[in-house]
Amino acid sequence: MASLGSRLQHSITPFALRSYLAEFISTFIFVFAAVGSTMASRRMMVDAAPADSSSLVANAVATAFALSVAVYISANISGGHVNPAVTFGMAIGGHISVPMTIFYWIVQMLGSVMACLLLKTITISKHVPVHGIAEEMTGFGAAILEGVMTFALVYTVYAASDPKKGPTGAIGPLAIGLIAGANVLASGPFTGGSMNPACSFGAAVVGGRFKNHAVYWVGPLIGGAVAGIIYDNVVFPAELRGVPEGLGGV
Amino acid sequence: MASLGSRLQHSITPFALRSYLAEFISTFIFVFAAVGSTMASRRMMVDAAPADSSSLVANAVATAFALSVAVYISANISGGHVNPAVTFGMAIGGHISVPMTIFYWIVQMLGSVMACLLLKTITISKHVPVHGIAEEMTGFGAAILEGVMTFALVYTVYAASDPKKGPTGAIGPLAIGLIAGANVLASGPFTGGSMNPACSFGAAVVGGRFKNHAVYWVGPLIGGAVAGIIYDNVVFPAELRGVPEGLGGV
Amino acid sequence: MASLGSRLQHSITPFALRSYLAEFISTFIFVFAAVGSTMASRRMMVDAAPADSSSLVANAVATAFALSVAVYISANISGGHVNPAVTFGMAIGGHISVPMTIFYWIVQMLGSVMACLLLKTITISKHVPVHGIAEEMTGFGAAILEGVMTFALVYTVYAASDPKKGPTGAIGPLAIGLIAGANVLASGPFTGGSMNPACSFGAAVVGGRFKNHAVYWVGPLIGGAVAGIIYDNVVFPAELRGVPEGLGGV
Amino acid sequence: MASLGSRLQHSITPFALRSYLAEFISTFIFVFAAVGSTMASRRMMVDAAPADSSSLVANAVATAFALSVAVYISANISGGHVNPAVTFGMAIGGHISVPMTIFYWIVQMLGSVMACLLLKTITISKHVPVHGIAEEMTGFGAAILEGVMTFALVYTVYAASDPKKGPTGAIGPLAIGLIAGANVLASGPFTGGSMNPACSFGAAVVGGRFKNHAVYWVGPLIGGAVAGIIYDNVVFPAELRGVPEGLGGV
Repeated sequence: MASLGSRLQHSITPFALRSYLAEFISTFIFVFAAVGSTMASRRMMVDAAPADSSSLVANAVATAFALSVAVYISANISGGHVNPAVTFGMAIGGHISVPMTIFYWIVQMLGSVMACLLLKTITISKHVPVHGIAEEMTGFGAAILEGVMTFALVYTVYAASDPKKGPTGAIGPLAIGLIAGANVLASGPFTGGSMNPACSFGAAVVGGRFKNHAVYWVGPLIGGAVAGIIYDNVVFPAELRGVPEGLGGV
Repeated sequence: MASLGSRLQHSITPFALRSYLAEFISTFIFVFAAVGSTMASRRMMVDAAPADSSSLVANAVATAFALSVAVYISANISGGHVNPAVTFGMAIGGHISVPMTIFYWIVQMLGSVMACLLLKTITISKHVPVHGIAEEMTGFGAAILEGVMTFALVYTVYAASDPKKGPTGAIGPLAIGLIAGANVLASGPFTGGSMNPACSFGAAVVGGRFKNHAVYWVGPLIGGAVAGIIYDNVVFPAELRGVPEGLGGV
Repeated sequence: MASLGSRLQHSITPFALRSYLAEFISTFIFVFAAVGSTMASRRMMVDAAPADSSSLVANAVATAFALSVAVYISANISGGHVNPAVTFGMAIGGHISVPMTIFYWIVQMLGSVMACLLLKTITISKHVPVHGIAEEMTGFGAAILEGVMTFALVYTVYAASDPKKGPTGAIGPLAIGLIAGANVLASGPFTGGSMNPACSFGAAVVGGRFKNHAVYWVGPLIGGAVAGIIYDNVVFPAELRGVPEGLGGV
Repeated sequence: MASLGSRLQHSITPFALRSYLAEFISTFIFVFAAVGSTMASRRMMVDAAPADSSSLVANAVATAFALSVAVYISANISGGHVNPAVTFGMAIGGHISVPMTIFYWIVQMLGSVMACLLLKTITISKHVPVHGIAEEMTGFGAAILEGVMTFALVYTVYAASDPKKGPTGAIGPLAIGLIAGANVLASGPFTGGSMNPACSFGAAVVGGRFKNHAVYWVGPLIGGAVAGIIYDNVVFPAELRGVPEGLGGV
């Protein structure tokens, strides 16, 4: 619809810049808690096994709580993406322009790197935990796992923005955080439960380890895109919008 | 009211098909997290005791978070059942037709089997955890326990769809997830805290073990039916609907 | 205002009977999860220490989740008390009549006893956990601790029913559950974190141990009454009602 | 705008006094759970290591739940600050007058000291846990860590009071509690995750240890002020208020 020029102009208006700042702050806050909680759990078990169920719970709860808040505080400013895979899923559905997508990705990655840098510097820790895959898994399997979980996440983001949600729309940001936390509990020891290329990127840059890093981009981007395509075209296609009521009981 | 023919036709409209897809996706997402969290906890304790309190917390939190989201994302499309016992409870109250009930059951079981298959394949795990009962319990006792808990779950589903809920209706999907999580904490080491025949079915198919499997159908279906009957006829009967205010303080 | 006769009549109308059923079901559901989670945690640690932090978390999360839901499902029917101390605090403020208060207490205690009986029978467990106080504490100190925590709980119940809450009123049942869960985390190893005479009563009856049982009535009833008096007379007195806006920033 | 005299008068009206009472009660309830949960966790591990992941989860969940409720119950009375850093951030933005800020600080510190005194007296515990920093960290680093986390907290408080939030405004108090809980999970073993000078002050007074106490004032106050300045001037400046819609997808 719009020319590339006007789209580029649109992407540097005060509104757009405000969005980038909101995404930067939200991603920073999210990654700080998600990566920080792993570092905190590890520090508490000086000589114990590498991790146990309670450290998995700590990481999952931090992820759920922080993502809920990160989405909440930026929802009405930038859309509350906090995640390149969400932005990609939104771009696929035409809900955000290509230039803005690129700026979103940049500030999300920047926010993540800054959060990991802060954690490393302040805590005098030599080891920022980098997402990695379990030794018995293949990179292909890990990408599918991350892709399926990101599908669930982006599908929830779409549902939360669905105008037919009615009063339950109020808990949308919470739902987005909770699905991320549930998925961390299901996948923690297998892939780390990232679902967020920016988070994995920041940890990899500051931790200095890029082994299997592609897994955390390929899986989530494809999963996010599929979620956007299905939601926009099958679950809630344009021709059904405006129809008053869903089927079933609740 | 409607003939079988028109009911069957009603069950294959685009709206109905959309509902089946929504139920499939929601059940897949829920079972993935519920079963996956048990697998993840087990993998983290290589040589420790079979399970401890923190793995129970992990499983309960995953169940609560994932069920909240699974209900949330499909509530305005399929009613957000995600559970054959809920669909049965709704059918008993006449809120969903018999042909649609059957289709709901099929897609719910399909979604569960797919989620368990994915977990088994991707994580190269030979053991998908199948719901089982504690050795000191009888099958009859286990069915009652599952039935009582499913009563609580379906009663909450009915309450969440009660038009008199007012503003608190917004947290309905959350309430449904939370009661499931609380019940897992109370019953985990006794029956596994399923409350969902589809979830138990998927795990049993992929795990290849059907011992005591009837427990996870008989208990929940009866519990769900009782909840529907009590809510529709005693707690909130048709003749009281439209009455402006409940009794008591809050 | 009303004569005793008319009040008694008012307490056996269909509306009132519906309220008693709702309180019975809600208290049953709550006590089942609160007491059951302690039994489940204990069963998981066969030969370990009597309890650890993760079993405290399990109990607190079960309490928070189950109380939120118990209040949610009965809020618009019976007021969602689920607790004799809440009913007492409401009666002190004149929000519920004396005969109804007595019926509420009876069904709450009945619901609790039934839940504990079910747990004992089904799980073939000889030990239903009874609330008790730490050995270094006095009964007087324990009553104060339970009283202060119940003050917080009943104060939250009053705040949740405050008509000036605006949109945040939607999360009222959640707030009531969360404060109970937080208080369990703060008091678990000291008094068990009951805040609910009915819950303690059911466990004591079925567990057959009434040592220090008065602590769990005296403390909560006084704490609940003080909360009602302060909220109604100081925090939100009748002469201020109808005033449009609170002070401060949020 | 207003003279000092009128501002002082404004700060002792019945409305203002009511606000001070609400802040006192809320801070008391919050500190009771936050500090109490640490004491409870410690008591449960008689001879184990100083702390582990599950005690971190216990503390974080207690913080999240209790702060959500503390903000919820006072939001429409005092603004639900419960924290001198939040009050300071609001004062920087001109949302609360200087005399009221001072009174808020006094009652917040008083509430915290009272809560810690109660915990010490009732539980016959000689050790009220005082916030302290990890041995490998500098005071400067700890102040930055507390400052960054308080920035996130106060930024969330501002977002929750943003009139453009729409229906998600209903979960504002929850979001404020959740970010505090997430930050405790990320920082527990490093600085204790205070973000609240009043909480640290109460524990220090009753625990009798003021080592590094300045960290818990300097960091949070600066972080809170920066959050207020950025939100009011950049994220949501006055000239943009009234604009109907944010950018992006959700």
